Amino acid sequence: MACRIARGVFKTENTPLIEGYGSVAGKKEGEGPLGKSFDVVEPDGHLGEETWEKAESKLQKTSIRLALKRAGVTANDIDAVFSGDLINQCIASAYGLRELEIPFFGVYGACSTMAEGMLLATLLADGKSVNRAVAVTSSHFSTAERQFRFPLSYGGQRTPTSQWTCTASGAVVISREKGSVEIAGGCIGKIADMGITDINNMGSAMAPSAVETVMRYLTATGTTPEDYDCIVTGDLGIVGSRLFIQLTQKQGLDLSGVHKDCGVLIFDPEKQDTHCGGSGCGCSASVLCGYFLPKLERGEIKNMLFTATGALMSPMSLQQGESIPSVAHLVHLKGREK
Amino acid sequence: MACRIARGVFKTENTPLIEGYGSVAGKKEGEGPLGKSFDVVEPDGHLGEETWEKAESKLQKTSIRLALKRAGVTANDIDAVFSGDLINQCIASAYGLRELEIPFFGVYGACSTMAEGMLLATLLADGKSVNRAVAVTSSHFSTAERQFRFPLSYGGQRTPTSQWTCTASGAVVISREKGSVEIAGGCIGKIADMGITDINNMGSAMAPSAVETVMRYLTATGTTPEDYDCIVTGDLGIVGSRLFIQLTQKQGLDLSGVHKDCGVLIFDPEKQDTHCGGSGCGCSASVLCGYFLPKLERGEIKNMLFTATGALMSPMSLQQGESIPSVAHLVHLKGREK
Repeated sequence: MACRIARGVFKTENTPLIEGYGSVAGKKEGEGPLGKSFDVVEPDGHLGEETWEKAESKLQKTSIRLALKRAGVTANDIDAVFSGDLINQCIASAYGLRELEIPFFGVYGACSTMAEGMLLATLLADGKSVNRAVAVTSSHFSTAERQFRFPLSYGGQRTPTSQWTCTASGAVVISREKGSVEIAGGCIGKIADMGITDINNMGSAMAPSAVETVMRYLTATGTTPEDYDCIVTGDLGIVGSRLFIQLTQKQGLDLSGVHKDCGVLIFDPEKQDTHCGGSGCGCSASVLCGYFLPKLERGEIKNMLFTATGALMSPMSLQQGESIPSVAHLVHLKGREK
Repeated sequence: MACRIARGVFKTENTPLIEGYGSVAGKKEGEGPLGKSFDVVEPDGHLGEETWEKAESKLQKTSIRLALKRAGVTANDIDAVFSGDLINQCIASAYGLRELEIPFFGVYGACSTMAEGMLLATLLADGKSVNRAVAVTSSHFSTAERQFRFPLSYGGQRTPTSQWTCTASGAVVISREKGSVEIAGGCIGKIADMGITDINNMGSAMAPSAVETVMRYLTATGTTPEDYDCIVTGDLGIVGSRLFIQLTQKQGLDLSGVHKDCGVLIFDPEKQDTHCGGSGCGCSASVLCGYFLPKLERGEIKNMLFTATGALMSPMSLQQGESIPSVAHLVHLKGREK
């Protein structure tokens, strides 16, 4: 029997495991505080390709290859792959994965995509529908910047609340039998919208959905922040993280001691001039796979919530006066008892 | 125990059911041969909204509402919704569903989205992870045309192989216990790419993936075309359907007697000037929900394969000289024995 989802929350019955993971990051991410954590740091934003979009596809190929290698399996051993990205029509994923011939589920959760793919892979593995499934995503500073904001050559001034889209990718192999990190449960996000309309303040637009998802999981599982070594959000950045803490405090919970944000961790706020930190699907994916999963594997972290947040607007929806809806998906990870 | 996916193919163990379905279509679709099949035909492309994008969101809201009503349930009874669409960043789905507060999985399979969402909902229902999940998608002629081709006011000449993006939406409620149509199995698509680069010949770009998916399902289940009342493709259109038949004949199978294509069915080729027929996520979704599901329910069709096809390119990937990858997802539907 597989787990039962109630109000979006589930505890796994058969404890799927993370069998392999891989991370790749760009030059700037490699120069940040987590630089040494990533499996591969690419010195050139084009990765030897003609276009940034092809470079982003290559990031996904690289992180999957690394994850498969660490798991000691090949693409043939994977029953399904979940992938998506920020580029229009998710082309980084489609072109990045077309050679692999793995049964393919395209997903779109903006920057929550990694957690969304992991939830679906977990549910299928927990129900024994798959032996192994992969979740992967990517982002690229240059593909995102020109699509969501301005052409890079325009040299637009960045606002104080803006974040820096990471050039990065992360991939995990989720297995029903083998692995070093346990997946204990999860929480499927609901769409939240607090009326924020500033595309340069994405952290604030996404914070409410992170709060809703984390609170829903804690309530449903009867746990408190103290039960976790860390409660990680995807890319709220500095401003969004502050709002996240404030909003949870208003609900009577203090997460300030256990909260970490991948977007805050990945860049040095003093030296790297990224304003509010990193963002993009690849931000939380690469920080999970480069930084947190090894810590869980080594037992340095035993119990953690990984909550990736996504902003579900488009440049067009904002031009049409819409606010920014967001979603946050949560995956509950545990270091395996030795 | 849930079903086991092998090479992308699965047979359900617990036979999830379609408990409700709803369809809505635009004026032109309403004037076509299936016009009377749709639950609702909208006389105005704006649906009373300021923008086409908001109108498309409203299509999704309408089809879900109809599907919930037919199932006799409310949004609170739905454990998860799978939704996606063709607009950049899938905004028709995000804005269309934000009020419903259902745990939300964004999916992107281009015009294969309906079958993709149905596969995932089926797998979760078969594993008893959900009691009910919804799959929904939409497309809109005017949002698609200006995004993928030209501004409508430009009045560009359409090529002979072009298809007409349908203004339509379809939604299904998939239940693990109740319903009138059985889901017997499915096949998850793999990305195929035959090197087609003509954005006005999408049917030909998608035909190879439909062939691969259908052949894989027939082989894995040991069935032949004669076992089915109909084998339905999503939106190959007239040219793509011809290619689909030719390619399967080359592999020794004659599907010409059982093949139907939603894109061919939805418009009158003589009177409606749509060239090769309909396309878009909403094409196969609305034809499934408006035309085929009632026939299955009434026992006029007993055994059918629904194979929705998606072209995974973007305008940018084509500008960059890439070919068009495609994917086809298959859902095996059976009229319930009375």
